[in-house]
Amino acid sequence: MTGPTEPTVGTGPLIDAIRARLPELRLLTDPVDRESHRSDETAYLHTGLPAAVALPTTTAQVAELVRIAGGLRVPVVPRGAGSGLSGGSAGIEGGLTIAFTAMDRILEIDRENLVAVVQPGVINARLKAAVAEVGLFYPPDPASFEICTIGGNLGTNAGGLCCVKYGQTRDSVLSLEVVMADGTVIRTGGKNVKDVAGYSLTHLIVGSQGTLGLITEATVRLRPAPPPRSTMLVFFPTLESAGAAVAGIAAAGLSPVTLELMDRFTIGAVDDMHQLGLDRTAAAMLMLESDMPAGAAADELERAEVACRAAGATDVIRAANEQEADWLRQARRAAHYALERLGEVRMEDIGVPRARVPDMLRAIERIAAKHEVRIGTFGHAGDGNLHPDLVFDRGDPRAEAVTKLVQADLYRAALDLGGTVTGEHGIGVARREWLEIQRGPDAVRFMRAIKAALDPLGILNPGRVI
Amino acid sequence: MTGPTEPTVGTGPLIDAIRARLPELRLLTDPVDRESHRSDETAYLHTGLPAAVALPTTTAQVAELVRIAGGLRVPVVPRGAGSGLSGGSAGIEGGLTIAFTAMDRILEIDRENLVAVVQPGVINARLKAAVAEVGLFYPPDPASFEICTIGGNLGTNAGGLCCVKYGQTRDSVLSLEVVMADGTVIRTGGKNVKDVAGYSLTHLIVGSQGTLGLITEATVRLRPAPPPRSTMLVFFPTLESAGAAVAGIAAAGLSPVTLELMDRFTIGAVDDMHQLGLDRTAAAMLMLESDMPAGAAADELERAEVACRAAGATDVIRAANEQEADWLRQARRAAHYALERLGEVRMEDIGVPRARVPDMLRAIERIAAKHEVRIGTFGHAGDGNLHPDLVFDRGDPRAEAVTKLVQADLYRAALDLGGTVTGEHGIGVARREWLEIQRGPDAVRFMRAIKAALDPLGILNPGRVI
Repeated sequence: MTGPTEPTVGTGPLIDAIRARLPELRLLTDPVDRESHRSDETAYLHTGLPAAVALPTTTAQVAELVRIAGGLRVPVVPRGAGSGLSGGSAGIEGGLTIAFTAMDRILEIDRENLVAVVQPGVINARLKAAVAEVGLFYPPDPASFEICTIGGNLGTNAGGLCCVKYGQTRDSVLSLEVVMADGTVIRTGGKNVKDVAGYSLTHLIVGSQGTLGLITEATVRLRPAPPPRSTMLVFFPTLESAGAAVAGIAAAGLSPVTLELMDRFTIGAVDDMHQLGLDRTAAAMLMLESDMPAGAAADELERAEVACRAAGATDVIRAANEQEADWLRQARRAAHYALERLGEVRMEDIGVPRARVPDMLRAIERIAAKHEVRIGTFGHAGDGNLHPDLVFDRGDPRAEAVTKLVQADLYRAALDLGGTVTGEHGIGVARREWLEIQRGPDAVRFMRAIKAALDPLGILNPGRVI
Repeated sequence: MTGPTEPTVGTGPLIDAIRARLPELRLLTDPVDRESHRSDETAYLHTGLPAAVALPTTTAQVAELVRIAGGLRVPVVPRGAGSGLSGGSAGIEGGLTIAFTAMDRILEIDRENLVAVVQPGVINARLKAAVAEVGLFYPPDPASFEICTIGGNLGTNAGGLCCVKYGQTRDSVLSLEVVMADGTVIRTGGKNVKDVAGYSLTHLIVGSQGTLGLITEATVRLRPAPPPRSTMLVFFPTLESAGAAVAGIAAAGLSPVTLELMDRFTIGAVDDMHQLGLDRTAAAMLMLESDMPAGAAADELERAEVACRAAGATDVIRAANEQEADWLRQARRAAHYALERLGEVRMEDIGVPRARVPDMLRAIERIAAKHEVRIGTFGHAGDGNLHPDLVFDRGDPRAEAVTKLVQADLYRAALDLGGTVTGEHGIGVARREWLEIQRGPDAVRFMRAIKAALDPLGILNPGRVI
């Protein structure tokens, strides 16, 4: 894009300062370019147009950008692929968006210590592929792993399908390089698996969505690559029976690497899209996978099937080979996209203690009926994290207002069950008024104290999270 | 103890205020009682005599104690079993020690959600036993698990033998109830496995050794109980070969639940104590365990043995049954006590990236020779965390001075290898001057900002960690 830059009032000093102090930096000021950095993937969000979008290639540039923005009291928004679902990287009117897409190098894969050192713009799938080439495995796998960046994953403490076994992004991080609000660059750790020297800034900053510091490098844990997964789909006549199966699988001592759920509406949408011949009469489907060595995997799925049948499962499909497994797995990965074929989708991200999943599913049905809105629910049954997708006809004028009402009912229901308004997408800006309702004003007061201590000018992604 | 209270200048107002506002609280003011709360298990530490020791039974009492202490600017020291190895719970002269030993209830074991809710005074082993009765497993297992408390484990983010597979204490915590420095009681989460609402105060406060808040309750994760462990001891002619075996085990994709190392000096001490017939000519011994299902466990140890033999292992002993396994396991658990039979022991806690373990072991030998001190080293080879135990003759007048010198050389060597001065015991007071050397002044500046934000009067365990 090479359109003329827009001489908006108030943005001149920022752009002038950046050009003067970082002449070699790629800086987007064209309205079209800035417009393309306005939103993330969150539907019905009111976003701002950044004054400029910087694409730094070095940590020093990021530090200088933060110093310039601080001097001018301009808000700084960090951004990866823009695939977030909480508005955390959406533009702030007149702010400086720092897009980390040009800091996309895998700096090191250390096989002996089972770690990789990466820049924040590395795409999750690219890291997975690079470490797989040397027989290693980077577990975090948000459904968007083919497009999302590690930096975004760190910002939200992203989860995914296999975190029921391997934990969330935070659990795979050993150390960060971070540009703090005053431009200081710190390193929070090393390659040590165990290290209790001082407060864990690593654990604090992961999940803070760029409000406490900007991550410019991460040292992440790798594992030896497990065997290819064995995959199984199980269908249930009721939500209760699916919930009972999840409990039964845990009670049997099994730790499947994937334990995903889809409701009837989502099963139908996926089947329409992929023609898989799924049982569309089922109330729910579970997808289970094992990544244990061959014999143990067969045994794990066998025992899981026993637990599912005991809970009332009506139908079980096991992938006969890797190709079939891929095919079944795509069905789950495609859930969100399948629903998007039906209309405009707003995706939610509630979590409940895992035994309350059936209660939450019933609450979702009740809320959908009350507001006369289509909701397809899928998600990570094994860890209680569910994604109700609200599906509206495109251009439905009541969509935004209804979304607000449904969101409130969903969140209230999750909190009443001891749950959370966000399991893996983040508070961002989309759920900000709910943080205090969930955590209580006192806990949030201490979060604000931490924010004020680390970013006294409030320039790092203001208005997000807290 | 019912001796007379000591009317020390400056302690009167504290004791008077506590007695007036918390008449039902058990408060120790007798010099003998206070003296017994002066030290933890850290050798050669200069400690203070608390003005009083409170044994609260409720969170409300803890909050009131903190408010009283805050009003009088009296330092507050939280304490569990006093088994710490960094001086984190050692007394502060004239301070108020809050011993959590009377808050020792397991409040809930929630089998469906795989969590337990516990008070901080619960002994680790008691929690393990209670959940084992219902087929569950609480992984964190510091070597002191039979005497240490969950509260202490949370304070230091304690590790242990099985954290190579299951992570440290922080990885098993979902939520905390915390009394903050102003007496406010907050709850940091719930029973949700995934919950990204706001900053993770849980992760920040675990490992902060009572300097950011006092933990009065914890919701911890449980797992289905794994099968009984299969155990194997392997002997190596050189440190290099043992290190190569650790790397080979990881490269083979194995995840043993225990991967422990003992050096020749420690092997001898343990063998003297337990007459196990260990190979005392070996330079190092590894203890490996598998907790996979029977067939898979045999396979895991078989493959580990192959990796060990390839690295040059000379001798392999496999436990034939559970009783033999217990016996071998005690050998490792007894390492510290076996060394204590030989003299006064100062235990260190360095960590290095796991591939640098042989380098670190060589450095330890070099440092021992340089200072002419006996050092027995054992520890968690699988995660790079080693415990060099300095062994002095009892009453050796140079012990404290030499400890200081050896400590400095050990820490410098660990840091030169990209390591840490503490893997699981904590900075406490014993390693405080090393925090800035390891993390850098900038990172520590931000830790101090967090401390000041959450505890502006600096009454929570001052002089510890930062």
